[in-house]
Amino acid sequence: MGKYLFMPLMLQVLAGLLLTSAASAQPPIAVAIHGGAGTITKANLTAAQEQAYLEALNRALDTAYEKLRDGAQGLDVVVDAIVLLEDSPLFNAGYGAVLTHEGAHELDAAIMDGATLQAGAVAGVRYIKNPIQAARAVMLHSPHVMLAGRGADAFAAIQGLELVDNNYFTTPRREADLRRFLESEAAQTRPAVDTKFGTVGVVVLDSFGNLAAGTSTGGMTGKRWGRIGDSPLIGAGTYANNASCAVSATGHGEYFIRYQVASDICARVEYLQESVQRAAQYVIENVLPKVGGDGGVVAVDSSGNVANVFNTEGMYRASIDANGRRSVAIYRESMTQADEPADTGEH
Amino acid sequence: MGKYLFMPLMLQVLAGLLLTSAASAQPPIAVAIHGGAGTITKANLTAAQEQAYLEALNRALDTAYEKLRDGAQGLDVVVDAIVLLEDSPLFNAGYGAVLTHEGAHELDAAIMDGATLQAGAVAGVRYIKNPIQAARAVMLHSPHVMLAGRGADAFAAIQGLELVDNNYFTTPRREADLRRFLESEAAQTRPAVDTKFGTVGVVVLDSFGNLAAGTSTGGMTGKRWGRIGDSPLIGAGTYANNASCAVSATGHGEYFIRYQVASDICARVEYLQESVQRAAQYVIENVLPKVGGDGGVVAVDSSGNVANVFNTEGMYRASIDANGRRSVAIYRESMTQADEPADTGEH
Repeated sequence: MGKYLFMPLMLQVLAGLLLTSAASAQPPIAVAIHGGAGTITKANLTAAQEQAYLEALNRALDTAYEKLRDGAQGLDVVVDAIVLLEDSPLFNAGYGAVLTHEGAHELDAAIMDGATLQAGAVAGVRYIKNPIQAARAVMLHSPHVMLAGRGADAFAAIQGLELVDNNYFTTPRREADLRRFLESEAAQTRPAVDTKFGTVGVVVLDSFGNLAAGTSTGGMTGKRWGRIGDSPLIGAGTYANNASCAVSATGHGEYFIRYQVASDICARVEYLQESVQRAAQYVIENVLPKVGGDGGVVAVDSSGNVANVFNTEGMYRASIDANGRRSVAIYRESMTQADEPADTGEH
Repeated sequence: MGKYLFMPLMLQVLAGLLLTSAASAQPPIAVAIHGGAGTITKANLTAAQEQAYLEALNRALDTAYEKLRDGAQGLDVVVDAIVLLEDSPLFNAGYGAVLTHEGAHELDAAIMDGATLQAGAVAGVRYIKNPIQAARAVMLHSPHVMLAGRGADAFAAIQGLELVDNNYFTTPRREADLRRFLESEAAQTRPAVDTKFGTVGVVVLDSFGNLAAGTSTGGMTGKRWGRIGDSPLIGAGTYANNASCAVSATGHGEYFIRYQVASDICARVEYLQESVQRAAQYVIENVLPKVGGDGGVVAVDSSGNVANVFNTEGMYRASIDANGRRSVAIYRESMTQADEPADTGEH
């Protein structure tokens, strides 16, 4: 009987060794998603709205993570997850994007490949259903990094991307936002609407060790004069470099351009050997608040460490790091959640 | 007689002390200008062309330096010097800008204030005589950093900037460039024209210790689809920060965007404590050549050290550093001239 006991034990040890070996052979993967930062408080959201945001974030997160686990390329995962967010009316990107001063939609998006530092971006496009796909097409199928306006729409058409009427993007919520914005403007008061938030972004570490970042937005409610924010600007709202990190930003874009938020976080990681969490916190919590730069970032480094950092009351966010720690959250109190084990009850 | 000899000597010493004191009380000022980098060789330029370029560079340099010496604000000096270059048909900016694929002009410009990190940019504008003035107007008179296309033209009109017909910018030289470009395209051969050079830029240290940078360009000959290059992108072609340096770039813009050339040079100065010369050389001579990124930069730090660095055969450039060392040059052999005393016979 000792013999029989001994044999299964051997098998168990052997099986355990094999499992451990298989687990450690799995390359690290990680993903972090944001859906905008701003004056997002529990008091400002109904239970149903909160539930809808959490569902949309969880869905994008699960989709991205499963694809990464199945060996998809990081760039494809970024695009697919952002398409889900663009197609959701909840976020200020694609369907559900905010309206310009003239009542139209002008959309921006960018993507960057941390392995090759290839990048693509579109700005001020009006007819591309999923601007993030156009950003990828610019990167892969043009000699350029950034295309703007009607030229970018024409390029997307040649690339066979799905085009829609500009009013496809319109939702009652954004019409109400613009109405309130124009009323405030006429009354010369501060806009009674959070004009500049809701941008979406995704950063990933894929199973090949490559980082990628993407961002998509409708910009600011009531924007004029062909304003371009940080989202489509490589280095400002979007940056990825295998040597440091991948970052997607959301917030008051003008500050993110001036302070080069995405590439500065990566420069601090590369040149000052800061962790991605520390670098992101320094820029978002120290540099930007001094000048009034509201917003946040999601970031991931090449070991799969994730940082979700913001200086506003809330940021829609979701992440799974290289240790499998999952975090889906909205409000400030759970800001450091990404560094904690999951099961905080918020997803 | 010993007494009479003694007195003047005393006076001379006194006068010398006063002069030294006055000289050392003068705050350092510096300026560096580029007019584009590319396949610029002595064989490619006639003596008359060479003379014309040197005269234009010297004129912009003298204008800028005199204004700095007279206590002008760095931002104003950058704008005034760039206006001179925009108004010259020699450079690919303003009058004399290259033509797009459709035979039009779409101009880009950016400016940045190193003291406040305020910045302004316009992209794809068609009717603004001096795009650098529009970039400054965006910085000073709009809540935005970057405006593009017709919206940016409309904003400039409201600001009272001088507007011109799009064909104001056209010169026979650029028409010939486009003709050759389209012929090459039809024959599916490499363009027989240097498509992407001639951008102008100015960086200064003013007498208040503030850095500023500006860049203006017509972009690439034959560009399409609303292509935006690095010049109007803060961090890519233009950056200024009193904490590090001011940079203006010229070259194959797509690489300057992907590698964040202007802000990376400043990050290396700030985070790695490299000299501005070393940082510029690292990025332009080490990083970019590996990926085929042709071009160059002018840069200045807050002590008035100047760097003029390029990886092409030539770069139109002119500078005076804080020690009064003047350099005006075109070809590669005199590349390190900015670090040498003047009187090399080339200006």
